[in-house]
Amino acid sequence: MTTPTAPLLRTATPTDFAAIWSLFEPIIVAGETYEFDESLTAAQAQAIWFNPQTQTVVAEWQGQIVGSYKLKPNFAGRGNHVANGSYIVGMQWQGQGIGRQLVEHSLQTAIAQGYRAMQFNIVVSTNVGAIKLYEKLGFAIVATIPQAFNHRTLGYVDTHVMYRNLIG
Amino acid sequence: MTTPTAPLLRTATPTDFAAIWSLFEPIIVAGETYEFDESLTAAQAQAIWFNPQTQTVVAEWQGQIVGSYKLKPNFAGRGNHVANGSYIVGMQWQGQGIGRQLVEHSLQTAIAQGYRAMQFNIVVSTNVGAIKLYEKLGFAIVATIPQAFNHRTLGYVDTHVMYRNLIG
Repeated sequence: MTTPTAPLLRTATPTDFAAIWSLFEPIIVAGETYEFDESLTAAQAQAIWFNPQTQTVVAEWQGQIVGSYKLKPNFAGRGNHVANGSYIVGMQWQGQGIGRQLVEHSLQTAIAQGYRAMQFNIVVSTNVGAIKLYEKLGFAIVATIPQAFNHRTLGYVDTHVMYRNLIG
Repeated sequence: MTTPTAPLLRTATPTDFAAIWSLFEPIIVAGETYEFDESLTAAQAQAIWFNPQTQTVVAEWQGQIVGSYKLKPNFAGRGNHVANGSYIVGMQWQGQGIGRQLVEHSLQTAIAQGYRAMQFNIVVSTNVGAIKLYEKLGFAIVATIPQAFNHRTLGYVDTHVMYRNLIG
């Protein structure tokens, strides 16, 4: 497989969802990194990935969608100055720097939108590659929640809250 | 005002929402403890307080609703064994032990439902009374998020993630 060293990142449209779902569903079924399980329907996933609160971006390489992220306020109202990002890289495209490109782009988007910080609420402790990437990009583990994720093969494993300041 | 030493706690029905909203809205407008701000409509609040994922309880004293809590999974699917609780005590009824009664009841409900832990995601650091109560009831501060809450009078203040194990 040729390495897509630099996919093009662009704002997603709802018509991209079928391609996003084809990447997202196997990740959910694998049950190692995302809170959702097999009971999540495509319609529910679409409502999560595309809604009025969410900015959604896709990574495209040679006309094919290889990844996506969404950015939204981590909380409503008085907590909406902290962004929350979620990332998908198709399993067949992982390990090629696309995740890093998505996270970096989301940080730029968050800063441009005026967010003051970014927070991840449920980073699975066994998802070591993601944690290393987030740390390289300035995030710190600010909490470890015992056994908060029911990993498909490992059972209950810890999760982290990770945080990065975006201002001055 | 007579002290409602022991309101009756019972499962809420959607027809209780008007009374709950009459307690909830002033708390939101005060802007000191809850993520929501004045832009939250009654309809949005109702969808948050009553939905298929949520168990809702009210505290009733002399035929009047004086408080409420809701319990729901803190995350979907592989994170749904951790409960999340939210509590309302009408401002005119605060300081009389109703909050403690609500939290204790929610812990019993969570245990009965088979939840393994309970987590609060955005406890405002200046809400000292609530934090002390949660600590008395076995919760610990597991993270402090800098300036994650935009307090109406104090500006950006820290928030805590608080956690309590419910098993073993």
